[in-house]
Amino acid sequence: MECKTKKLALLGFGNAGQAFAKLLMEKHEEIIEKYGFDVVVTAVATNSKGNLVCEDGIDLHKALSDIDEFGRFMDEKNITEADTMKIVSEADYDVLVEMTPLNIFTGQPAISHIETAFSRGKDVITANKGPVAWKFSQLNKTARDNNLKFYYETTVMDGTPVFNLVDKTLMMAKVTEVSGILNSTTNFILEELAKGAEYEDIMSRGRRMGFIEADSAMDIEGYDAAAKITALLNVLMDADITPDMVDRKGIEDITVEDIKAADKRGNVIKLLCKGVRDEKGNVKASVKPEEVPKNHMLASIDSTTSVVSITTDLMKTVSIIEHEPEIEQTAYGVFGDLLRVLSE
Amino acid sequence: MECKTKKLALLGFGNAGQAFAKLLMEKHEEIIEKYGFDVVVTAVATNSKGNLVCEDGIDLHKALSDIDEFGRFMDEKNITEADTMKIVSEADYDVLVEMTPLNIFTGQPAISHIETAFSRGKDVITANKGPVAWKFSQLNKTARDNNLKFYYETTVMDGTPVFNLVDKTLMMAKVTEVSGILNSTTNFILEELAKGAEYEDIMSRGRRMGFIEADSAMDIEGYDAAAKITALLNVLMDADITPDMVDRKGIEDITVEDIKAADKRGNVIKLLCKGVRDEKGNVKASVKPEEVPKNHMLASIDSTTSVVSITTDLMKTVSIIEHEPEIEQTAYGVFGDLLRVLSE
Repeated sequence: MECKTKKLALLGFGNAGQAFAKLLMEKHEEIIEKYGFDVVVTAVATNSKGNLVCEDGIDLHKALSDIDEFGRFMDEKNITEADTMKIVSEADYDVLVEMTPLNIFTGQPAISHIETAFSRGKDVITANKGPVAWKFSQLNKTARDNNLKFYYETTVMDGTPVFNLVDKTLMMAKVTEVSGILNSTTNFILEELAKGAEYEDIMSRGRRMGFIEADSAMDIEGYDAAAKITALLNVLMDADITPDMVDRKGIEDITVEDIKAADKRGNVIKLLCKGVRDEKGNVKASVKPEEVPKNHMLASIDSTTSVVSITTDLMKTVSIIEHEPEIEQTAYGVFGDLLRVLSE
Repeated sequence: MECKTKKLALLGFGNAGQAFAKLLMEKHEEIIEKYGFDVVVTAVATNSKGNLVCEDGIDLHKALSDIDEFGRFMDEKNITEADTMKIVSEADYDVLVEMTPLNIFTGQPAISHIETAFSRGKDVITANKGPVAWKFSQLNKTARDNNLKFYYETTVMDGTPVFNLVDKTLMMAKVTEVSGILNSTTNFILEELAKGAEYEDIMSRGRRMGFIEADSAMDIEGYDAAAKITALLNVLMDADITPDMVDRKGIEDITVEDIKAADKRGNVIKLLCKGVRDEKGNVKASVKPEEVPKNHMLASIDSTTSVVSITTDLMKTVSIIEHEPEIEQTAYGVFGDLLRVLSE
C-alpha cells in the first residue's frame, strides 16, 4: 500500500497529550498497515514545557522522557520561541489536535486556534470541550463549507462513543432527548456524603486521589456539567445553545440532611444533566441535583463512572456507560478521532 | 442524484418483518434523498401467510392490510407457490433479509438461506441469530471472499448498536471480554420472584404480557442467552464457538429461598452471560445465574431492558443498555443494517 504522511500539531502536552503520544508511538506501524498513513507530530505547543517544531517529525520518545526527567522539552534543535498561536498559524501540519486547558466561560483561546487552523485548510480534532460548548454551530459550518474534518469525541466521556454512537450507528434516527451523569467530582462527593463521610474529609481525600481539582468550584457549581450537556445538545440536537443558557444548579447547597431524607424515600441524589426540545422547538438544558430511586440505573453510576442516555424517534432510549476511565481512555478518544480523519 | 434500485427479499413477515415493512414505507423518500436508492421489496416468504414475488416491487401497504384483515396475503397477481428456498434460489433481489423463526439447536434453515444467497452473489442481513451463533466464521469468510455484505446487528439487543459499536466506533481496540444480561424472560421471572410473586402467577402474567412464550424452556434453561453470547463472541472476539460449547445453566433451579438468601446478602440474582479468553487463547463462554450487589448497574437491568458490557485493551469497559424495547426497535436493527448496505 502506498504510504502517505499525516502531520499533527499538538496543542497541550499534559497527561492526556502525553498518553496520546504514547499511543501514537505504540500503534504507529499498525496505523500504517491499516490506514496507509505514516503519522508524525510536527509541532507541540505547551504553556510550561516549551514548544517544539520539526517538519520531519518530532522524536516523541525523547520529548516524553525529557518531560519525565526535566519537566520540559530539551530537544534543542527543535525548540522554538514561537508561541501557540504562531505555531497554529505558521507550522506545517495537516491536523490540529486541540488539547489546551479549558476556559469554561469563553471557550478561548481554543476557539481561535480552531478557527485559524480551518482558515488554513487544516482538519481539527478537539479534546477541549470549550469550542463545542460555545461555538459549535459556526465551527461546524466552517468545517463543512470548506470540506474539512472536525471531530470532538473526547469532549464528553473521553473515548466512549457518544457523538460517534449517534453519527455512525444510529443512522437516520432523530435525537429527541439527552440526559446523563457527566461530572465525576460531584458524583464522588454525593456518593461519599451518602456513605456518611464529612465534607472536608471528602474534599481532601478527593484531592489526594486526583478526583477533585484544587479549584473545585467549576465542578461543584455545575459549570463543567453544563458545558458537557451543552456540547452534547449542540452536536446531537442542533441546539445552538451556550453553557450560560443552561438552567444550572450545582451541589453546593446539598446537605447531609438532604441526602438522609432522600435515603428514607429510597432515593439517592445525583447531579443530572438533561436536554429536551420544548413545544416551540427550542432545546432546553438543565443541570440539577435530583433524587433517583436506589434501584435505578442512574443510582449505580458511582465516582468516575459516567453515563449518557440518548432517546431517538426510532430506537427509544439507549444508554452508554464509561466505567472508571483513566487517562488512557482520554487519549483513545483523540486517537479514535485521528483514525476517523485517516479513514474518511 | 442518480437513483438506483435496491431489491430486498424478506424471509419471514411476523411482527418484526411487518414493523420493518412499515419503517421502509415511512422512510422511502428519505432513503432516496440521503442514500440515492429506491428500495423495493421484490419477494416475501412466510410459513403461514403465503409468499409474494414481484420484480417491480410488492405493494407493502396492501400486504400489511391484507394480513391485518385476512391473516394472509391476498395480492393474487403476485402470490406464488414457490417455497422459501425456491425464492431464495431464484427470485430477483439484491439483499436477502433473513427473519425466519430461529432453530436454536441448528441455526437451520436460516444458514442454508444465507449460503444460497451468497452463492448467488447477494448481500445478506440477518435478524435470525442462529447463523451467527452456529456458523459465523464460515459465513463471514464466504461474504468477505466474495466481497458481499453480511450484517446482523439485530441478532443481539435489536437495533441497539453492539456489533456496530465495536466495528464503527471502537476502531483498533481489541475486545478482551464481553458480558451482559440478554434474556428478558428470565430477567422478568427473577425480578418478579424477588418481589415475592408466585412462580405460576409470574408465568401466566408473563404470557399475557407477551414476555414469556408458550414454550419458555429455551429461555428458562438459558439456551437463548447461550446463543446470544455465542453470537457476540464469534463476531467480537473471533471465538469460533457454537452454543453447545457454552457452560450453560438456566434459572430452572432457582428457588424463592435462593433469592431471599441473596437478598439478605444485599444481592439480587441475575442470569449473566460472559465470555473471556483463557490462558490458551480460547474463548470460554458461560451463562449462569449469579448474585450481583443491589447497587450494581447489573441489578438495575429489569424486565425487557438488557445490557452488554464490552472490555477492550484501549477503552477499558463500556456498557450499552437497551431500555424496554418494542418491536419497532427490532425493525430498526434490520433497517440500520440496510442503511449500512446502502452506504458502503
